[in-house]
Amino acid sequence: MISSRQAPIAPPLEVSEWFNTDGAISLADLQGQVVAIEAFQLLCPGCVSHGLPQAKRIADAFGSDVTVLGLHTVFEHHDAMLPVSLAAFLYEYRIGFPVGVDAHHKPGGMPITMSRYELRGTPSLVLIDRAGRLRLNAFGHTEDMVIGAALARLIDEQPPTSST
Amino acid sequence: MISSRQAPIAPPLEVSEWFNTDGAISLADLQGQVVAIEAFQLLCPGCVSHGLPQAKRIADAFGSDVTVLGLHTVFEHHDAMLPVSLAAFLYEYRIGFPVGVDAHHKPGGMPITMSRYELRGTPSLVLIDRAGRLRLNAFGHTEDMVIGAALARLIDEQPPTSST
Amino acid sequence: MISSRQAPIAPPLEVSEWFNTDGAISLADLQGQVVAIEAFQLLCPGCVSHGLPQAKRIADAFGSDVTVLGLHTVFEHHDAMLPVSLAAFLYEYRIGFPVGVDAHHKPGGMPITMSRYELRGTPSLVLIDRAGRLRLNAFGHTEDMVIGAALARLIDEQPPTSST
Amino acid sequence: MISSRQAPIAPPLEVSEWFNTDGAISLADLQGQVVAIEAFQLLCPGCVSHGLPQAKRIADAFGSDVTVLGLHTVFEHHDAMLPVSLAAFLYEYRIGFPVGVDAHHKPGGMPITMSRYELRGTPSLVLIDRAGRLRLNAFGHTEDMVIGAALARLIDEQPPTSST
Repeated sequence: MISSRQAPIAPPLEVSEWFNTDGAISLADLQGQVVAIEAFQLLCPGCVSHGLPQAKRIADAFGSDVTVLGLHTVFEHHDAMLPVSLAAFLYEYRIGFPVGVDAHHKPGGMPITMSRYELRGTPSLVLIDRAGRLRLNAFGHTEDMVIGAALARLIDEQPPTSST
Repeated sequence: MISSRQAPIAPPLEVSEWFNTDGAISLADLQGQVVAIEAFQLLCPGCVSHGLPQAKRIADAFGSDVTVLGLHTVFEHHDAMLPVSLAAFLYEYRIGFPVGVDAHHKPGGMPITMSRYELRGTPSLVLIDRAGRLRLNAFGHTEDMVIGAALARLIDEQPPTSST
Repeated sequence: MISSRQAPIAPPLEVSEWFNTDGAISLADLQGQVVAIEAFQLLCPGCVSHGLPQAKRIADAFGSDVTVLGLHTVFEHHDAMLPVSLAAFLYEYRIGFPVGVDAHHKPGGMPITMSRYELRGTPSLVLIDRAGRLRLNAFGHTEDMVIGAALARLIDEQPPTSST
Repeated sequence: MISSRQAPIAPPLEVSEWFNTDGAISLADLQGQVVAIEAFQLLCPGCVSHGLPQAKRIADAFGSDVTVLGLHTVFEHHDAMLPVSLAAFLYEYRIGFPVGVDAHHKPGGMPITMSRYELRGTPSLVLIDRAGRLRLNAFGHTEDMVIGAALARLIDEQPPTSST
């Protein structure tokens, strides 16, 4: 985990469409909260077998102490993973937390938020602290034991004072 | 497994598009072979975790003794599982056997082959003997031990004589 | 699987103590039956995670068509795996089929039956046909699909005629 | 997890024999350290499949930040789980952290440390803070996510001052 002093401010999310939420969600709205973002693609085997189940376990273990979001960062097979497929995927896999579709400047290529966060692929897990700083950016498989420890520490950090 | 005497002739496949094969495949072409058909939908969790891995294990264990086919029987979320998504799915999940898209009379609803076989849902595993008879039609999870036994018996049956 | 013509007669079992059965079991008594013998040691991790669960799946899938036996072939840590430990192990792991303790000529070293069968280690799965011939002798992990096929073929073979 | 104010001092360990360590270990010696104790029996299926692998993951994830100990709390099948069997078990299952044999006042029955901690069975995971207080006492299966969080919090607590 990146120390709070060295951590950069997490870039804003650029989302073209949200699922499982009434309105759009911005990181600014989540200031003061610990946020876990699971970046995935619905046709990514490692996301289905590891990343998304781990995100569910985060939500189950931490409840309201962590805000869990999904981010559908389509950087390949773009036509195969349109929002209509994502909606059915979220329903079939019983994913209940809010999921945003990472926006593209133009069709194809890397989506905007994925580029801003310099994600190396999917699945990636991003942790953001109460002050909006990017504290973990992990590609692939990370043990629950390690993620549980990282989240406990972020939860226990004092929220930033109002002057910040 | 249905006894050879009581087994009906397997209905023909009605496929709108094939993947992983140069040309269309018909059951008539496969006469004399033992055929295993894995009926699935790409957004069906049980197909991803159980049905398709089992189909791969059939192909691995029996090689040329069994012809393994996939059948994409979309009966829900039709717009979410178009052929373009199937193509990417087959690539990402490393599925190498031929897969046909079950055709629809009209958009939506049950696909034609699925109706002919009276499949109860996905995943379903269909086994066809050398004489083209439908010998097993199993919905959900069936143990490898049982499927391995059924296939060995179909392989060992004599092919039908030419007069048949 | 070894062809019936080339298969040797399975050597007799040399068992010092039986569990989960009222009396001693000999292969001669089982003539006419298909027999699966799971050779294991209670402190062998691969036996606990793979071999014994597979033996249970054989019993579940084939019922009275296959006689499943366990054989406790202790060839290392002899003092650590005495019959008193085996009895508790069978109870805790819910193993209900008969299990014999492979006998030793003298304390330590390879047990007698294990030597007769030239087993390479544990777990090993041995399949014996209705005529008492040794048809499979597999060390380590073998897929259920393959074992299911082998057993179906042994079940379907004609029992030896009385003159044999 | 029990709050530091309400947590009782962890009772001393009563160990008749140690494995994987040069000398006896007492909780008094570990004052100032976070300690995780995995209470298990070698013939307990849930210990083999869940408890001990989790203890290994604790050791892997936290390294020198957590002292991991095993405690062989034999309360059933006493003759089946003697130290000679434990030694072979630890070798075969590649368990490298120190393991103590929970002592008995007399043969049979509940071992002493298990009684002092009022453990409900095996596996049980006990967490002790830097001040020697009992902070978690969990029977059965607890998620890694939850254990990782609990350990991070114990690690981050200040060690007690000398006057305490």
